[in-house]
Amino acid sequence: MSNLLQVHNSLSGKKEVFKSILPKHVGMYVCGPTVYSNVHLGNCRTFISFDLIYRYLIHLGYKVRYVRNITDVGHLENDSDEGEDRISKRARLESIEPMEIVQRYTLDFRRIMRLFNTLSPSIEPTASGHILEQIELIKKLVKNDYAYEINGSVYFDVKKFNQDIPYGKLSGRNIDELIHNSRALDGQNDKKNPQDFALWKKAEPIHIMRWPSPWSDGFPGWHLECTAMSRKYLGTKFDIHGGGMDLKFPHHECEIAQAEGIEKESPVNYWLHTNMLTLNGKKMAKSTGNNILPDEIFDGKNTFFKKAFSPMVIKFFMLQAHYRSMVDISEKALEASEKGYNRLLSALETIEKITPSSKTTGFDVISWKEKCYSSMNDDFNSPLLIGHLFDAVKFINSVKNKKKSISILDLETLKKSIHDFIYNVLGFRISKYSENDTKFEKNKEILELLLEVRNKARDKKDFEISDFIRESLIELKIELNDTGNGTNYEIK
Amino acid sequence: MSNLLQVHNSLSGKKEVFKSILPKHVGMYVCGPTVYSNVHLGNCRTFISFDLIYRYLIHLGYKVRYVRNITDVGHLENDSDEGEDRISKRARLESIEPMEIVQRYTLDFRRIMRLFNTLSPSIEPTASGHILEQIELIKKLVKNDYAYEINGSVYFDVKKFNQDIPYGKLSGRNIDELIHNSRALDGQNDKKNPQDFALWKKAEPIHIMRWPSPWSDGFPGWHLECTAMSRKYLGTKFDIHGGGMDLKFPHHECEIAQAEGIEKESPVNYWLHTNMLTLNGKKMAKSTGNNILPDEIFDGKNTFFKKAFSPMVIKFFMLQAHYRSMVDISEKALEASEKGYNRLLSALETIEKITPSSKTTGFDVISWKEKCYSSMNDDFNSPLLIGHLFDAVKFINSVKNKKKSISILDLETLKKSIHDFIYNVLGFRISKYSENDTKFEKNKEILELLLEVRNKARDKKDFEISDFIRESLIELKIELNDTGNGTNYEIK
Repeated sequence: MSNLLQVHNSLSGKKEVFKSILPKHVGMYVCGPTVYSNVHLGNCRTFISFDLIYRYLIHLGYKVRYVRNITDVGHLENDSDEGEDRISKRARLESIEPMEIVQRYTLDFRRIMRLFNTLSPSIEPTASGHILEQIELIKKLVKNDYAYEINGSVYFDVKKFNQDIPYGKLSGRNIDELIHNSRALDGQNDKKNPQDFALWKKAEPIHIMRWPSPWSDGFPGWHLECTAMSRKYLGTKFDIHGGGMDLKFPHHECEIAQAEGIEKESPVNYWLHTNMLTLNGKKMAKSTGNNILPDEIFDGKNTFFKKAFSPMVIKFFMLQAHYRSMVDISEKALEASEKGYNRLLSALETIEKITPSSKTTGFDVISWKEKCYSSMNDDFNSPLLIGHLFDAVKFINSVKNKKKSISILDLETLKKSIHDFIYNVLGFRISKYSENDTKFEKNKEILELLLEVRNKARDKKDFEISDFIRESLIELKIELNDTGNGTNYEIK
Repeated sequence: MSNLLQVHNSLSGKKEVFKSILPKHVGMYVCGPTVYSNVHLGNCRTFISFDLIYRYLIHLGYKVRYVRNITDVGHLENDSDEGEDRISKRARLESIEPMEIVQRYTLDFRRIMRLFNTLSPSIEPTASGHILEQIELIKKLVKNDYAYEINGSVYFDVKKFNQDIPYGKLSGRNIDELIHNSRALDGQNDKKNPQDFALWKKAEPIHIMRWPSPWSDGFPGWHLECTAMSRKYLGTKFDIHGGGMDLKFPHHECEIAQAEGIEKESPVNYWLHTNMLTLNGKKMAKSTGNNILPDEIFDGKNTFFKKAFSPMVIKFFMLQAHYRSMVDISEKALEASEKGYNRLLSALETIEKITPSSKTTGFDVISWKEKCYSSMNDDFNSPLLIGHLFDAVKFINSVKNKKKSISILDLETLKKSIHDFIYNVLGFRISKYSENDTKFEKNKEILELLLEVRNKARDKKDFEISDFIRESLIELKIELNDTGNGTNYEIK
């Protein structure tokens, strides 16, 4: 148990005490979505994880500048950085302007993030909005001799860089090994060495997305945007860089090389990576069909699960695993999460109605609260935190059933902490209308129950009650029509 | 009455038959918000008006590319294009990064637009995201000798331009008059002539927002972004350019000059301008306090109106005026709109329950439908359309009261047209939950009514009914607790 926040740093492979560069300020950069299709559920897990981290840092009193980019250009199709820009390709298929696709999927992404009740980052810069900044970086890398131009394209010279500064620190890859592994796949392009990566690509005539540059009309390489935007908004050295673990190599490794190629020092103090989400035990992939969109879970229209699950249940499910653990989504697991989430909600209602006693029995609120913070301080261990919350739920129910008691002071502490953790840290939204409108539907059932009561009264010739119901409903602008087939109602 | 869409073109000052450049495609550019503060209600009117126009063009079968920019940089503070960038100023006051302010108010703007149920434009490009495109335009204007550099800034040479192409076409201003009027205010800057405007401004050391350029580290002049972004996404010649009428001069006049300075021809076929919104008969302005934010109307927390009005009521109010007319917002006017809007909603419910007859009496559905289209074809005359909708409402109520009748075929036509106009063209959102949750609240009242009925039954010792109510509610997961002070309920 510790009072100091510790985070697992992918760079050292260890948990380290978190110390921000500026006291009480944190700069955090997270690689955001590529907006050429609907956001992937695995990406949602990453963004929900960093939302937890963002929220907890804020809760601890940090002023956090959280930058999450939108990749709207420059993501090349295959691993060797060849092929055409993915977004342009889709655009031509639909024969619309690439930025129309970008707009559609950016809006969709934001809508899904709102459904998950994640906080908006402080800044959401776009790659296409920072071409000039990327060109300036390339100029510096060329000047420092870590990049070379060939046929209008510019590449990062990994071998040359590695002579001065070791390449591969984050992913632990050896440069000779990289050269050996990639040679066979490559060879048809302009690079000096196969492990070199594009900083600027000359646009083929077929390319729609293109900008002028000192080298050619073209577009920036994908790895460059994050270096440009993190430097611009967080400075050349900042606290936290996050992303999915699939980005560790080559993307984040290249980011480090680009930044070190200019500043000669590491750009980021703590690298945080989230783990994968699998579906029914297998990797999610569009190509295999083992894939599900957030919307398809929310509306229940999918071939994987028999029922719909709300965004809050999905979020609860995800937060029940640690961000660095793999997690498998299945119907059984979601049903269990739904049950757990509803138990938590019920406890929130129960605690409001608890009558405090003179003393607390069978529960140490102060040490419980400490344990909650300790779990979050232990690399944002949300499953451990949720476990502690359920200890509190159990206790709350015991107090309700008069088996245990709680003092006024402890009740206030317990309430405050539970609210803090559920709303502010885990970021659940408990709305008046539950996600799937069950409460609203329930009210329809209550109206129908009222009509049934009225029929019972009429059967008994208790017209006092039946007329009272009819007239009271008219005041509520609900009109009853008695027909041969029963009573209809009309909401005015 | 006409089958052809006519639009009022500010360039000619007349209504003209609308003819798109490409058959069945429309390119439309609208000057969007400056995101350094909460969106102004007058701006909302402009965007709601162009949403109506966008929706109607789509309804007519056009494929519309609707571009509305986000001004996140370069809006200079005073009319003579002097002073510091407004956004940077605010940023330093709050000592945060300008893009954090931009993010905050962009999100707020989008939220308000969602509340008004406006469609998202096809593309929402940002000024800061198109610096490179703006620099390219300046290069062309300098090359064409319509712009000159001085001390790191670049200005558009209005006098020189006017020798080749007349300046002032849109606003009807005479250039000599402009020179005469502005001379007194000016003189302390680098411009050759006072009516010249900045294309690029060298940044003072105090400026945070700055980009490298061939002339200086600086930022583009405000008028340039719309020329750059409209050209990029709609081409050098496009169909419709819109904005508030306060933008006609100098902003749109300068846009025309910039585009003509490159292409030698007019960039836009139809210029559309929306009129002003006043509050209680006076101009809205933060400085005088005669100002109200959308949120302050929706939540009722303001000093102008005694009650809250929903976004749909505000939208209905705005659409009850033609977009080119001034409109004054006042409590009385909003109350009248609320009444009217609710009448419209009731008719939507009534029409679903109407039983058709063998023939229609007292209403010509076909000619009514034609009149609806004619009003929209007459420069998007929404107040006229709403008038026709109320004729239909009157008729629907007469059919309900059996005073008139409608045939099956006419009923289908009427329903379809009413839905088309209310949902698709005017863009109202009739949700299950009304804007202010009255229906949900009503259901709470129904539950309380049920408890009242139970108490009545208990008073009468009719335990069959009271137990039936209690047990049925338990099935609905509502638990009753009878206490000395009455019955409480708990929704599980």
